[in-house]
Amino acid sequence: MARLAPEMQACIDTCLDCYKTCLSTATHHCLEAGGKHTEPAHFRLMLACAEICRTSAHVMLLGTEHHTATCRACAEICERCAQNCERVGDMEDCVRTCRACAESCRRMAV
Amino acid sequence: MARLAPEMQACIDTCLDCYKTCLSTATHHCLEAGGKHTEPAHFRLMLACAEICRTSAHVMLLGTEHHTATCRACAEICERCAQNCERVGDMEDCVRTCRACAESCRRMAV
Amino acid sequence: MARLAPEMQACIDTCLDCYKTCLSTATHHCLEAGGKHTEPAHFRLMLACAEICRTSAHVMLLGTEHHTATCRACAEICERCAQNCERVGDMEDCVRTCRACAESCRRMAV
Amino acid sequence: MARLAPEMQACIDTCLDCYKTCLSTATHHCLEAGGKHTEPAHFRLMLACAEICRTSAHVMLLGTEHHTATCRACAEICERCAQNCERVGDMEDCVRTCRACAESCRRMAV
Repeated sequence: MARLAPEMQACIDTCLDCYKTCLSTATHHCLEAGGKHTEPAHFRLMLACAEICRTSAHVMLLGTEHHTATCRACAEICERCAQNCERVGDMEDCVRTCRACAESCRRMAV
Repeated sequence: MARLAPEMQACIDTCLDCYKTCLSTATHHCLEAGGKHTEPAHFRLMLACAEICRTSAHVMLLGTEHHTATCRACAEICERCAQNCERVGDMEDCVRTCRACAESCRRMAV
Repeated sequence: MARLAPEMQACIDTCLDCYKTCLSTATHHCLEAGGKHTEPAHFRLMLACAEICRTSAHVMLLGTEHHTATCRACAEICERCAQNCERVGDMEDCVRTCRACAESCRRMAV
Repeated sequence: MARLAPEMQACIDTCLDCYKTCLSTATHHCLEAGGKHTEPAHFRLMLACAEICRTSAHVMLLGTEHHTATCRACAEICERCAQNCERVGDMEDCVRTCRACAESCRRMAV
């Protein structure tokens, strides 16, 4: 990676971790478990979380100061995804990763 | 497209138009013109605008209610991109498309 | 959009149509219907098709000659998605859109 | 990440590394250096490489067997990007990362 501040590099990696966790958990764990794991509202939120995490990392990599807008959106969606995964249950990895990503993005959004 | 509200379908198409305009203008018009058109802050913002427009459309297509967060980020970045394209000059298409997208996303963000 | 050949502009729009159809059908029709519509192999292929269609359009918009590689991948995955949607049934829109996209991308891949 | 074969997990991470390197090098090193670094053919190829690397990782994360098509496209574009970065010069990180990604994707494409 090019010269980016260490805190931003860490947030990029946290976002990409959360992207990988949400996407692979949705399409492996959730699709295979079925039931409440493929309930539309839950599954769509998992995919939305993967998407905004990927984009939040992307906009930080670009090096524009406007990453604050995407980090704010990412923090908000990760927080909702964590809450929803707690409600569904048996989604501990997602809960933990989404919380960490929300926290990291909140710090980069200011 | 699946059953989405007409206003949301229109916003999805506006976002994808803005994505196409920003990306192709950056990599054709701006790269070929050079000078202030490849000034890092301007070029990065064009790419960031393309990315969040694509993601704003994506989250609306997913059908989660949390598109409000990504529409808000999209409206903010499109507005900045329009202002910056006006400053750079000779970017009328981008200015117009970014303004239209900012306006449409603001309505979907509430 | 910047100056792109008309045939390429048409292929970009066909890819984005297929992206919208696959993504919204997966997360609305398929998630709501359940049963064979959320069978992992089918659902993952729908999401993979949406992703490569989006990327195929992106690489054409960038204006690099290497869009042939992504158009070839897109044609292959769209063709498989069309076949699989026929097998699952009640997915006529997807079948038709994926076939059209496969055909258009095959022409751009040479 | 969900249960994926170790070799596939390694390829996903190699693709995401290459994505990060190409995107941040293009928008930091290349945009700031200018000259042959913002020559349209070079710059567009850097962005195309970033995009297909991201998508190659995405399709492997989804868990569909059709990742072979996207890995093949990724190997081809990474190889071209490595060659082109060698020609431009002063792009050693990109050359190395693109070569590693091409090699890893070729193995996953069979």
